[in-house]
Amino acid sequence: MKGSDFMKIVREKTPLVHHITNYVTVNDCANVTICAGGSPVMSDEAKDIVDISRISSAVVLNMGTLNERTVESIIISGKVANENGIPVVFDPVGAGASAYRNEVADRVLREVKVDVIKGNAGEIGVLSGIGGEVRGVDSVSSNNEKLATEALAKKYNCVVAMTGKTDYVSDGERTITLKNGHDLMGCVSGTGCMVSSVVGCYVGANGVSVDSVAAAISTFSIAGEIAAETANGPGTFKVNLLDSLFNLTCEKFDEMRKVE
Amino acid sequence: MKGSDFMKIVREKTPLVHHITNYVTVNDCANVTICAGGSPVMSDEAKDIVDISRISSAVVLNMGTLNERTVESIIISGKVANENGIPVVFDPVGAGASAYRNEVADRVLREVKVDVIKGNAGEIGVLSGIGGEVRGVDSVSSNNEKLATEALAKKYNCVVAMTGKTDYVSDGERTITLKNGHDLMGCVSGTGCMVSSVVGCYVGANGVSVDSVAAAISTFSIAGEIAAETANGPGTFKVNLLDSLFNLTCEKFDEMRKVE
Amino acid sequence: MKGSDFMKIVREKTPLVHHITNYVTVNDCANVTICAGGSPVMSDEAKDIVDISRISSAVVLNMGTLNERTVESIIISGKVANENGIPVVFDPVGAGASAYRNEVADRVLREVKVDVIKGNAGEIGVLSGIGGEVRGVDSVSSNNEKLATEALAKKYNCVVAMTGKTDYVSDGERTITLKNGHDLMGCVSGTGCMVSSVVGCYVGANGVSVDSVAAAISTFSIAGEIAAETANGPGTFKVNLLDSLFNLTCEKFDEMRKVE
Repeated sequence: MKGSDFMKIVREKTPLVHHITNYVTVNDCANVTICAGGSPVMSDEAKDIVDISRISSAVVLNMGTLNERTVESIIISGKVANENGIPVVFDPVGAGASAYRNEVADRVLREVKVDVIKGNAGEIGVLSGIGGEVRGVDSVSSNNEKLATEALAKKYNCVVAMTGKTDYVSDGERTITLKNGHDLMGCVSGTGCMVSSVVGCYVGANGVSVDSVAAAISTFSIAGEIAAETANGPGTFKVNLLDSLFNLTCEKFDEMRKVE
Repeated sequence: MKGSDFMKIVREKTPLVHHITNYVTVNDCANVTICAGGSPVMSDEAKDIVDISRISSAVVLNMGTLNERTVESIIISGKVANENGIPVVFDPVGAGASAYRNEVADRVLREVKVDVIKGNAGEIGVLSGIGGEVRGVDSVSSNNEKLATEALAKKYNCVVAMTGKTDYVSDGERTITLKNGHDLMGCVSGTGCMVSSVVGCYVGANGVSVDSVAAAISTFSIAGEIAAETANGPGTFKVNLLDSLFNLTCEKFDEMRKVE
Repeated sequence: MKGSDFMKIVREKTPLVHHITNYVTVNDCANVTICAGGSPVMSDEAKDIVDISRISSAVVLNMGTLNERTVESIIISGKVANENGIPVVFDPVGAGASAYRNEVADRVLREVKVDVIKGNAGEIGVLSGIGGEVRGVDSVSSNNEKLATEALAKKYNCVVAMTGKTDYVSDGERTITLKNGHDLMGCVSGTGCMVSSVVGCYVGANGVSVDSVAAAISTFSIAGEIAAETANGPGTFKVNLLDSLFNLTCEKFDEMRKVE
């Protein structure tokens, strides 16, 4: 199976991706989901999410602007997904930035069987125990990015994706290194959240594997490279990114992909 | 009165449109309101909304990311609007997707005199009792779109607008069929919410009628057609849509409008 | 120190700016913070914000879509900032539009030592007691803009920035009048919120002064003028604004700035 085959299947299946996510980047997540070939639904009310989660192809749980009410919703939605065999993608935004965020991330990982953890170097570093530095919700560094990714995958028996200049995707046994992307991706708020939405589409349509998660990340990074070609700055870049994601062909994907 | 006269009056009056809406597409709703000629105000705190609703020209109630707190606010705001003779536009996002959404939609329609219901084929189908299919918050189909629109208008004695490839606007007696629009409108999250904001502007400035609601929907769909001419995908399309809505002239509106 | 020196220092220091803000324009605030040279973090959960606020360079408190829960968070965050000597920027969105907003604005100004108040003519007019007119969250007019700015600065012993066609920045002793900007800034939702984010960056990196606040406002207004040159309407304008803010050079700033 080629990398681009995962993309083809997403577009054929139009997976419904349920998000409980932050209010900062939620609109971009919705539009990215559509442009990647999925169908987004956002809902965080406890009374609503059982019905929504169980008809979804994947659930994306993002703690960017967590609060007490939505943390409970994250837990409920994760459990419903688990009971129904629906893949759960967890984006532990800002883990390491506050005691509360650490506590919530731990709780989610303890009470929900998470299938994919997607984070930046700081977040994955902190959760793996290898160490990482977080400043607000932005990653500063991790001592050893590949090592931390693998350690966290082993710790929770899941696929872990660490995104940054180089991306690592690992299930603890096998690790894929990805090299696409562009600096402008770091100049737009929420590119990390958006890639989690793309991962939701890919595991929703293809099942969970190192390869399906890696294909999702490559898709987004390649779209970013194409978007940057005609961007004048972060504003035009974000607009172009939706277009290039929407228009990305399998041929272009296979041609541009940098995978190790 | 020509269709474009409604647009002219919106721009003269700059109606203040109070929204209680979802956090996914709220920014687009605010900007669309401005570009259509209105002035948006978003507020959902029970202590705040009485003062805000009663000075508004129209109230738009959207249950996209409903929660227990904001459902109460929706009810309060609707009642304040009723007491003050202010038009109420209801967008029952995702009706049919969960038991909770059905329950809330029913409650709103029971406790508030809604003047306009704006939905997609699935939502209107479900609420009318004619039947419809909803997947997440996106419509899949309705058995008979025109019939469902008319039935719902009769059921609640209001104007109903069903938007899709073809749009139907009915008060139960008279039904207008509209044929403008572009496929890219379905590739942007929240175009349904945005058209509700435009409806809010039009009924706020012109009063509630099949004609004022139909003029609002035509305005948005024509702007969409113009936006698509120079779009490269959903990203540029959404940006262009705000521009084309803002720049739309009465002449262009009358020239491009497809109404039956 | 030239006006552009403040900009240079922001970009060198990348100040972390904690926002408790509304869900309408929050994404734009995040992206504007990045484009201005800062790093944004948005969080409003009481359990989270103590850790977040105290590592921040500045705190921006915006009551655009206030609710009972987030008003408490605004107070907590402001107090934490005060205890740690971190500048507090307050944007009293819609003060004058409802009794609740007036009450909250008064409470914030009573319980938190606010360093900068940034508002439009209506809001500053209302808070100063000089009088102003507010319709929804948009300003209509103030009897005497400069006078109201100075009166409010004296009342709370802080820097006050009133933005509009002409901007006034005053500490009650010295008042700077700024004349950059473009009409399209009034056609985009949230330009007022965005300028507060830029102020957060500037006082976070440079400390609080009439000059640092005025430099922030000039930066945003000049970026707006440049953005308007190639805009076709509010949609392209907002996209361009992020680009022009990101690309603005010190030379261009000094060349274009209109200050009295």
